[in-house]
Amino acid sequence: MRLGLDIGGTKIDAVALGDDDTVLARMRVPTGFGAEAVLHNARAAALQTAEAAGASAGAMPPIGIGIPGMVDAGAGVVRYAVNLGLEELALGPELAASLGTAVRIENDVNAASLGAYHLLGLDSSMAYLNLGTGLAAGFVLDGALWRGARGTAGEIGHIPVDPHGEQCACGQRGCLETIASGGWVARKWGGDAALPVLELFDRADAGDARAVALRDELIGGAAAAVRILVLAVDVDAVVIGGGISNLGARLLDRVAAALDAQAETSEFLASLALSSRVRLVPHEQPVAAVGAALAGIRPVPAL
Amino acid sequence: MRLGLDIGGTKIDAVALGDDDTVLARMRVPTGFGAEAVLHNARAAALQTAEAAGASAGAMPPIGIGIPGMVDAGAGVVRYAVNLGLEELALGPELAASLGTAVRIENDVNAASLGAYHLLGLDSSMAYLNLGTGLAAGFVLDGALWRGARGTAGEIGHIPVDPHGEQCACGQRGCLETIASGGWVARKWGGDAALPVLELFDRADAGDARAVALRDELIGGAAAAVRILVLAVDVDAVVIGGGISNLGARLLDRVAAALDAQAETSEFLASLALSSRVRLVPHEQPVAAVGAALAGIRPVPAL
Repeated sequence: MRLGLDIGGTKIDAVALGDDDTVLARMRVPTGFGAEAVLHNARAAALQTAEAAGASAGAMPPIGIGIPGMVDAGAGVVRYAVNLGLEELALGPELAASLGTAVRIENDVNAASLGAYHLLGLDSSMAYLNLGTGLAAGFVLDGALWRGARGTAGEIGHIPVDPHGEQCACGQRGCLETIASGGWVARKWGGDAALPVLELFDRADAGDARAVALRDELIGGAAAAVRILVLAVDVDAVVIGGGISNLGARLLDRVAAALDAQAETSEFLASLALSSRVRLVPHEQPVAAVGAALAGIRPVPAL
Repeated sequence: MRLGLDIGGTKIDAVALGDDDTVLARMRVPTGFGAEAVLHNARAAALQTAEAAGASAGAMPPIGIGIPGMVDAGAGVVRYAVNLGLEELALGPELAASLGTAVRIENDVNAASLGAYHLLGLDSSMAYLNLGTGLAAGFVLDGALWRGARGTAGEIGHIPVDPHGEQCACGQRGCLETIASGGWVARKWGGDAALPVLELFDRADAGDARAVALRDELIGGAAAAVRILVLAVDVDAVVIGGGISNLGARLLDRVAAALDAQAETSEFLASLALSSRVRLVPHEQPVAAVGAALAGIRPVPAL
């Protein structure tokens, strides 16, 4: 048995995987804020999930954790997870010591990549395109996570695609993230809807011209992200996840249509069959928690 | 012993590698034009190189070939190598049958990637950035070529980076290749110099304002290519090769300076240490031929 924890901004999603990688138990607890709360809640989620899955007392299964921020997987340390109130936390060693088992932590996008690859039953190469507040990607190549030489692969949100585009928080101008991300859409759309991208799509469907223009800009940015991933790495599949992917077919169909429209003006793009490579992450499944469990095999050094 | 052939537009560069991967023999022959000439000359180059390296008669070593065009490595077929006059040629099976040995063919950029990785003694991940008539890249990840799911990884020259840029032959607008490639520079610079990029750099050094502007655009495009490769794949090293790399330090120093200037306006880019990852392919060494020999281990089906 292995445990996987997906530590998000509001909740921790926890699963126990059996030896055949099926989900034996799943639960959610609030994340809390700050190092003490996050550690306490992660520990409780792990203990309760192990118990629910029938792990014998005193034999804690190995744990994999997906978490936002800058993750040093080797040392088990997470830094700058601002939404969780964590500046620097030796999450891996702390939990390992407290629970008496191996703990491996992984960037949340990487964990979701591995989970999507597994849950979709893929067996070639895949990019996971996370359209959330920001835009980033993860890669599974030949069945294994590609983290990059220094652990930062997939930062395609900060590839500039328009020299006259908006100033990005990263210091560059016209980054892909300034077009195709929830954070930027919310800022440009304005208002105070709980789900600004959903409101945007609803208003666009209702014929609001400003909403249509902004929605199409977002779709064009998502299509550009798919194109970049395939042109650079030639992944067989691009799986769209993250908060915006909850729009489901309303998102996917438009992204595929945008890719098809581009293919009509370019034999080269047509030869890449981009729209056929795109799909959505499985809905309502604990993708990142499952991926974290799968990533949790290699232990981190004990505290 | 293994043989490697780099079949280029004008010459075939051939090497024999010993079992410790050192170069035992090297020679060059003209490529010729059209299927019959290319086959004949490749066969002659292989035979002469094997003989020069002391291979026993009748025991032809396995051969790896790097060649431009669309390469189907599995079938050993090259298509659309227009500079060689080849529309479609079963180069692998033809040579294998004629020489009685295993022959594997590989895209020329991939072969050069593997050769650069080996000759530079790298042991992490690398992108090979080919700045020639066009712009494309190859990847060596964890010591192995990453060809992509469908053999087209590294087509970063056709990532659009400016929606108001020039129309590209691929059907898109503002592709990276329309800024950072020898073909486009020659077209914009005009004149009839044999080496237009060299003339451009010389005239820029002499203070010609139009040359300075065009040179800096080229440098900016090369820097953008490095940034894209590291942001997407987080390779440890980006090795610049291709015809333009013959400018040596005149190119490398300016690309590094452009990356450093960008890092000064972006903490994020600074954290990626881009300029420290860039280097030149080894000068005057048979990079692609060596890489082709290294890639030539897996045989193709016989004719």
